[in-house]
Amino acid sequence: SDFARIDHHRQLRTGFPEVIWGQDKTTEQILTLFRAYAARNQAAIATRIEPDRIPRLQAQLPELTYDSIARIAALQPQLPQPQPGRLAVVSAGTSDLPVAEEAAVVAELWGFRVDRIRDVGVAGLHRLLAERSRLDQADVLIVVAGMEGALPSVIAGLVACPIIAVPTSVGYGASFQGLAALLSMLNSCAPGMGVVNIDNGFGAAQLAGRILRRLHRLGRSDDQ
Amino acid sequence: SDFARIDHHRQLRTGFPEVIWGQDKTTEQILTLFRAYAARNQAAIATRIEPDRIPRLQAQLPELTYDSIARIAALQPQLPQPQPGRLAVVSAGTSDLPVAEEAAVVAELWGFRVDRIRDVGVAGLHRLLAERSRLDQADVLIVVAGMEGALPSVIAGLVACPIIAVPTSVGYGASFQGLAALLSMLNSCAPGMGVVNIDNGFGAAQLAGRILRRLHRLGRSDDQ
Amino acid sequence: SDFARIDHHRQLRTGFPEVIWGQDKTTEQILTLFRAYAARNQAAIATRIEPDRIPRLQAQLPELTYDSIARIAALQPQLPQPQPGRLAVVSAGTSDLPVAEEAAVVAELWGFRVDRIRDVGVAGLHRLLAERSRLDQADVLIVVAGMEGALPSVIAGLVACPIIAVPTSVGYGASFQGLAALLSMLNSCAPGMGVVNIDNGFGAAQLAGRILRRLHRLGRSDDQ
Amino acid sequence: SDFARIDHHRQLRTGFPEVIWGQDKTTEQILTLFRAYAARNQAAIATRIEPDRIPRLQAQLPELTYDSIARIAALQPQLPQPQPGRLAVVSAGTSDLPVAEEAAVVAELWGFRVDRIRDVGVAGLHRLLAERSRLDQADVLIVVAGMEGALPSVIAGLVACPIIAVPTSVGYGASFQGLAALLSMLNSCAPGMGVVNIDNGFGAAQLAGRILRRLHRLGRSDDQ
Amino acid sequence: SDFARIDHHRQLRTGFPEVIWGQDKTTEQILTLFRAYAARNQAAIATRIEPDRIPRLQAQLPELTYDSIARIAALQPQLPQPQPGRLAVVSAGTSDLPVAEEAAVVAELWGFRVDRIRDVGVAGLHRLLAERSRLDQADVLIVVAGMEGALPSVIAGLVACPIIAVPTSVGYGASFQGLAALLSMLNSCAPGMGVVNIDNGFGAAQLAGRILRRLHRLGRSDDQ
Amino acid sequence: SDFARIDHHRQLRTGFPEVIWGQDKTTEQILTLFRAYAARNQAAIATRIEPDRIPRLQAQLPELTYDSIARIAALQPQLPQPQPGRLAVVSAGTSDLPVAEEAAVVAELWGFRVDRIRDVGVAGLHRLLAERSRLDQADVLIVVAGMEGALPSVIAGLVACPIIAVPTSVGYGASFQGLAALLSMLNSCAPGMGVVNIDNGFGAAQLAGRILRRLHRLGRSDDQ
Amino acid sequence: SDFARIDHHRQLRTGFPEVIWGQDKTTEQILTLFRAYAARNQAAIATRIEPDRIPRLQAQLPELTYDSIARIAALQPQLPQPQPGRLAVVSAGTSDLPVAEEAAVVAELWGFRVDRIRDVGVAGLHRLLAERSRLDQADVLIVVAGMEGALPSVIAGLVACPIIAVPTSVGYGASFQGLAALLSMLNSCAPGMGVVNIDNGFGAAQLAGRILRRLHRLGRSDDQ
Amino acid sequence: SDFARIDHHRQLRTGFPEVIWGQDKTTEQILTLFRAYAARNQAAIATRIEPDRIPRLQAQLPELTYDSIARIAALQPQLPQPQPGRLAVVSAGTSDLPVAEEAAVVAELWGFRVDRIRDVGVAGLHRLLAERSRLDQADVLIVVAGMEGALPSVIAGLVACPIIAVPTSVGYGASFQGLAALLSMLNSCAPGMGVVNIDNGFGAAQLAGRILRRLHRLGRSDDQ
Ligand SMILES: Nc1ncnc2c1ncn2[C@@H]1O[C@H](COP(=O)(O)O)[C@@H](O)[C@H]1O
Ligand SMILES: Nc1ncnc2c1ncn2[C@@H]1O[C@H](COP(=O)(O)O)[C@@H](O)[C@H]1O
Ligand SMILES: Nc1ncnc2c1ncn2[C@@H]1O[C@H](COP(=O)(O)O)[C@@H](O)[C@H]1O
Ligand SMILES: Nc1ncnc2c1ncn2[C@@H]1O[C@H](COP(=O)(O)O)[C@@H](O)[C@H]1O
Ligand SMILES: [Mg+2]
Ligand SMILES: [Mg+2]
Ligand SMILES: [Mg+2]
Ligand SMILES: [Mg+2]
Ligand SMILES: [Mg+2]
Ligand SMILES: [Mg+2]
Ligand SMILES: [Mg+2]
Ligand SMILES: [Mg+2]
Repeated sequence: SDFARIDHHRQLRTGFPEVIWGQDKTTEQILTLFRAYAARNQAAIATRIEPDRIPRLQAQLPELTYDSIARIAALQPQLPQPQPGRLAVVSAGTSDLPVAEEAAVVAELWGFRVDRIRDVGVAGLHRLLAERSRLDQADVLIVVAGMEGALPSVIAGLVACPIIAVPTSVGYGASFQGLAALLSMLNSCAPGMGVVNIDNGFGAAQLAGRILRRLHRLGRSDDQ
Repeated sequence: SDFARIDHHRQLRTGFPEVIWGQDKTTEQILTLFRAYAARNQAAIATRIEPDRIPRLQAQLPELTYDSIARIAALQPQLPQPQPGRLAVVSAGTSDLPVAEEAAVVAELWGFRVDRIRDVGVAGLHRLLAERSRLDQADVLIVVAGMEGALPSVIAGLVACPIIAVPTSVGYGASFQGLAALLSMLNSCAPGMGVVNIDNGFGAAQLAGRILRRLHRLGRSDDQ
Repeated sequence: SDFARIDHHRQLRTGFPEVIWGQDKTTEQILTLFRAYAARNQAAIATRIEPDRIPRLQAQLPELTYDSIARIAALQPQLPQPQPGRLAVVSAGTSDLPVAEEAAVVAELWGFRVDRIRDVGVAGLHRLLAERSRLDQADVLIVVAGMEGALPSVIAGLVACPIIAVPTSVGYGASFQGLAALLSMLNSCAPGMGVVNIDNGFGAAQLAGRILRRLHRLGRSDDQ
Repeated sequence: SDFARIDHHRQLRTGFPEVIWGQDKTTEQILTLFRAYAARNQAAIATRIEPDRIPRLQAQLPELTYDSIARIAALQPQLPQPQPGRLAVVSAGTSDLPVAEEAAVVAELWGFRVDRIRDVGVAGLHRLLAERSRLDQADVLIVVAGMEGALPSVIAGLVACPIIAVPTSVGYGASFQGLAALLSMLNSCAPGMGVVNIDNGFGAAQLAGRILRRLHRLGRSDDQ
Repeated sequence: SDFARIDHHRQLRTGFPEVIWGQDKTTEQILTLFRAYAARNQAAIATRIEPDRIPRLQAQLPELTYDSIARIAALQPQLPQPQPGRLAVVSAGTSDLPVAEEAAVVAELWGFRVDRIRDVGVAGLHRLLAERSRLDQADVLIVVAGMEGALPSVIAGLVACPIIAVPTSVGYGASFQGLAALLSMLNSCAPGMGVVNIDNGFGAAQLAGRILRRLHRLGRSDDQ
Repeated sequence: SDFARIDHHRQLRTGFPEVIWGQDKTTEQILTLFRAYAARNQAAIATRIEPDRIPRLQAQLPELTYDSIARIAALQPQLPQPQPGRLAVVSAGTSDLPVAEEAAVVAELWGFRVDRIRDVGVAGLHRLLAERSRLDQADVLIVVAGMEGALPSVIAGLVACPIIAVPTSVGYGASFQGLAALLSMLNSCAPGMGVVNIDNGFGAAQLAGRILRRLHRLGRSDDQ
Repeated sequence: SDFARIDHHRQLRTGFPEVIWGQDKTTEQILTLFRAYAARNQAAIATRIEPDRIPRLQAQLPELTYDSIARIAALQPQLPQPQPGRLAVVSAGTSDLPVAEEAAVVAELWGFRVDRIRDVGVAGLHRLLAERSRLDQADVLIVVAGMEGALPSVIAGLVACPIIAVPTSVGYGASFQGLAALLSMLNSCAPGMGVVNIDNGFGAAQLAGRILRRLHRLGRSDDQ
Repeated sequence: SDFARIDHHRQLRTGFPEVIWGQDKTTEQILTLFRAYAARNQAAIATRIEPDRIPRLQAQLPELTYDSIARIAALQPQLPQPQPGRLAVVSAGTSDLPVAEEAAVVAELWGFRVDRIRDVGVAGLHRLLAERSRLDQADVLIVVAGMEGALPSVIAGLVACPIIAVPTSVGYGASFQGLAALLSMLNSCAPGMGVVNIDNGFGAAQLAGRILRRLHRLGRSDDQ
């Protein structure tokens, strides 16, 4: 194809393959890219695929799977290799689910185990405190919240593992499409978190994946 | 004076006298205003008075008192009448104290009892939870926080009384001089709070005072 | 349901039950939540419900009521207990009505009496001044305004009760979807008001409700 | 001088001479420009001149006058010709005086009569309403306000003459150096005003002057 | 109607009647307001009326006129009284016409004569310079421009009359829906202009009308 | 001390002790806090301490060390326990050094080994590519850059380990005190990075520390 | 036509004819403008023409050509004269193609040769480095990128020719419709580039064209 | 030095040597960098050097020259080689001179001839039109303007050569430190310009230099 040059070495360099960003591409372009991966017998993931595109895509690629909450389409010729570590995806409210699922589904497609802890926003703190043991067991936490985005700050003061904070565009008025949550997370009084773009579940999954894989390598080499 | 017309009826209309905003006035102007109140034997409060102005002001008005943390100067010919209700001023970190004290000192100068709960930021949640009974006893809470400004959201989910949220300019970088904390409070997932301007301890005190006085009146008349 | 954990203790902690935020939820999710409340014989309120969802919702829940201006759907197994105090909802222009009604309808569903004072924007000051006695009778004022958002400032200088200022997204151009009104209210030269998020009628109702309930309690206990 | 080419025809084209913007110029450059006007026996005005520059300027130009509130330095070889019409400069608070005086002093240096109405901010509406006859007599009103900037909106609904609204940088926090007042004025629900830049007293004076001169010309020619 | 209180005295106070802001109102509300004016035999103007509402409005009010470029609907029981002075509406590009026409049509409905000078943007300066005599004849200029909004600055340096600058939302990218043009006009290096809100043709017309009427009055009284 | 309640359990919960934020505290307050830690024989770190405070602090606490580039003061009763893993701190330009050193010095005070890779901004790509083996050896990379903030994006496409991106306030004009670099990093086309606040070297160090410690634990437990 | 005055001398002054901005014009207006050019036998280009307008336009102007990626419609009575120099249009990702093609197609319609280098974003640096000889051969580079907009910075450090940086609105969340990429390019640590508006392929083409034509003239005259 | 790695090959790659950014460096660091260049007998330029640093720098490097308007310090072991083409630097007002001189002095230090056209802001258009022949003779124009930044738009419609637009931070209020001028230039209705960062005279000089050198090369090779 003349519109794209797939970065087939990215997996070698960074450990994770290039993922197709669906939002600004035509369905024709997405099909061409899926086929290019299929031709090499490689798995391929596309994010930000609206449901109305699926019939057309699946007509051409019957083996394509689709998760309608995460809006992710994928081709997986074989099951992913199981990956080390425990990732938990924590979300503040029901409305944050699509972003939380983008993170969780991508991580699972890459072979990571994911624990989902949902609807534990800070307005009802007991819901979060009731899940402390699941929080403590995780090696990495992805914490997803919109509106005032306070959840990662509260969690960062409770646990020892690294936290990936994902602001969402959930909210209205002075949330300015997620800006309030983003600023909140960047200014957390509790250190220990890295922030990704608003609604960027995918980026959170990759950062979590890099940490978990590295942990594994480090642990082993340290023991030698 | 030709530069100001003091609103002597404000107390009658709103229950609280006009307060002198010190920041953009010359020391000469501030003196003139204090004298105008003194001439009527009225108490007068000036906020945002930097310490280096005090010697000059006290040379002219020896009875002027000054609180250097709250940066408030006041003339009080007699003690204020005790006011009803319980106000607590909660602050997230040491750096938020000047704003918290602006609220507390103004409220005390007007006759309200103030309970101060300090350094209970969300990075160490147990510090806040250890103070739940003091929080529950208050009729109004003023909650002061900078950085990510999450404290009022957490408290609003724990208590039943009205909350006045005060964002502070404490922070740096993407706090944008208090904007992050302000947006956080406006977008709180826990309802029940009203927000005032960044660093506006004075405004919080007046809103608290209006609530407490009204509560009093309402309670009594309801009982009749 | 696995997508939400309803905070059934919120009423105990804060005095008000959790309310369903409709905007980012699927109709299926909203139905599930209504049923969860109905199963416990509890009242349930959902805000930000567009009219086109109502037929589907009422087909499943025939007893569901809907206010099309406030965009509020509710299930009320029994009438709410009457609440103390006088709340007035003041709005600047006709276009601000949906937000003003979100506040008024929520307050009424919770049992508060509401006085509505409409279309008294500052461009025709006599309209406001003609209503001074209704303003003076209120224990709490919710003041709703878009565009330049000056109405709460003017009212705060006239009355003694606490004011909850609600900026609306009404306007165009440099109103930036309500930012102008929001900033105006935060910077009011007349103190005594707390500001909620742009278009946040619901949050204003809850803050008003907290004040009115507290007033009641305070008044009584003071008299003892 | 090689750093500036004075626009000596501006008076012919626009009715008002070029005025020296002092803020970003060296004292040496300001002196050179005053001398260039003096050499042609023309009046010259410089704005934004801090007081500490005056001794050096007056040492060279002893006839230079200086208004320390308006921060304006001027050379006037002869008195200005009296100009038609009635201009009133209205200001909301004491802190707005420097900007109001920049407008008033420039207008007077050009020969206009100026009525000053001060400290009539909307927090005490009776102060403004007490001055309605002075407001009604004016042909043009310059209205200067910081903080929430509501004053021009209120006045525009009361009077029939054109209003020039001047936001000031007075305020703090979410005033964002005058942005709140600026947006407020641009979004006024009361039409009939034109807005100038934050703190731009000079621009307001020139717009007022253009209106008053034109009124004069128009009135006369219409009568013929 | 219970949703609006028409300000019937506004004409007496300000010289111009209240105008109906159509954008956020239901068609039913707009009809009700038109009928309220018609019942008093008064002219009524509604702005921001999209064409698809017209059939329904005209079915009820057959005498309603509509200008589809200006998006203005009006009821005029009799011709307006001719007004004094010369108003010119200058626009930078074809895309700015709807805003320019909003100004021009409102002014004409109120009885003012309007000269339209179109497509004279600064990219082809000769087009503007070719119209200097029409510019010089005007008593007030309304200058409408989007994109970089430079046109009012260039004109303000060429003419002596007051200028009303109207930024439009025409543009894309870093125009931020008219913000670039707005800031440009507020920061003009050529003084003598007042700025109204982005796309606010109506506000420009009213300011122009206030100036022209006042000029008239002033001219006459000066001659006595 | 009544102004602060030190969170002595934070180390237990999160693995790292509370650190003193120096910027908004008085020297007296900082001394009190250092003494509180010293009284328990605990190490204590204070960030954002300007050099002019050091003489006064060291007069009271002679064993206090100070790093003048990182602006960090510390009391360390004993050497920190060596920590696992390899952390590299990469910086784009000389002007970014203070932030990079805040990260590096904090990490070293906590016992981590730090490799510093300096002045490898993208304007001279060969400088970065020449250091690829040091980049590949790291388990976590902290990448510090101001201006356009492109360095983390370029590195994230080259390596497999997690990246912590730190925007700095280095730049001018449209860098808006680090906003440009911050947005750049949040929008990176290369995934695998988490972003911290502008100039937040401390937060980056803690996130890196959490990752490295967890890696260690995970690796070991996996091997069992 | 009375809605536009075509600037037929622009070609004489600037070397390039006026181009029709299609976005805010009616199809009728666009037709009228094409016909005005056709009547003079001149080529005419219209940008930002959505595909759904083409049937109606081609029904009237059968010879109209349309490029659906660049969204450009054109009438060319004869082939353009070949222009000097080598222009390369480099784009970061597939989603940036519409903007890159706006630049490339406009340049080709004016007679320039264009080399297209696609999908060479910085996440896979080898793709860019593999094209260094094509980059080095260009006399001007147009570099198009969205998201973090790092590509022009990286290229500016590699080549010697002038670079025109075009930020695109591709991205989401904190890209703020291209603002992140725009700021990135304005703050590039590698000098040698000029930035145009977000998505402004057309402006980039004209700047490139001006440079290439001038180079030609300069080269020749220097040799004499 | 361990704090910087000078990019000595930048001249080979881009045609221009690295320049020292002085603003955020210590005087000691600047000295070290100058000496590193001097040790290789290369010319070195440092920008953003405040005058108070010069005595210390010249005490160590007596041959250092300094331009106090441009704030540029330089070491030039030999005269630069004369460069091809004609560069004109046009500035709008006296206050823009430091930025204009940063561009002009850097260009001259690199061997380019510079024509300076000053104080030709759009408020007095005749001043600009009087210089049209100098404008037409230039091969590249650097146009420097603050406030509303309209000058490059006006010039771009008059001439055929490429234009480099430099917004300056000159202004106040809603200029937001140069943002207004920057947006103005990015949204110019007259195409043909590239914009650099606010106050970035240096970047403009380098872009101009790249164009002029390329022109030269192109011209020659075309003639062969
Ligand atoms: N109209 C509204 N405006 C603001 N917050 C609301 C509104 N309606 C409901 N909420 C809040 O949203 C929370 C529920 O969020 P969720 O769990 O996503 O349904 C409730 O507890 C309320 O605090
Ligand atoms: N350089 C720094 N940057 C960001 N946060 C910091 C820094 N230094 C200390 N802190 C945080 O500030 C908190 C202390 O705030 P305070 O109670 O005001 O001393 C600590 O627990 C840290 O989380
Ligand atoms: N795609 C484009 N991007 C930016 N400016 C454009 C574009 N297409 C046309 N223009 C400019 O818009 C001007 C025409 O505006 P108008 O008079 O409204 O048609 C032309 O002279 C061009 O300078
Ligand atoms: N006045 C200036 N404006 C913008 N960039 C500059 C300026 N002076 C130097 N630079 C850039 O800053 C880089 C040097 O940064 P540094 O390595 O920190 O000295 C140089 O290569 C130039 O690209
Ligand atoms: Mg919930
Ligand atoms: Mg603390
Ligand atoms: Mg009305
Ligand atoms: Mg006052
Ligand atoms: Mg045109
Ligand atoms: Mg360097
Ligand atoms: Mg790609
Ligand atoms: Mg000048």
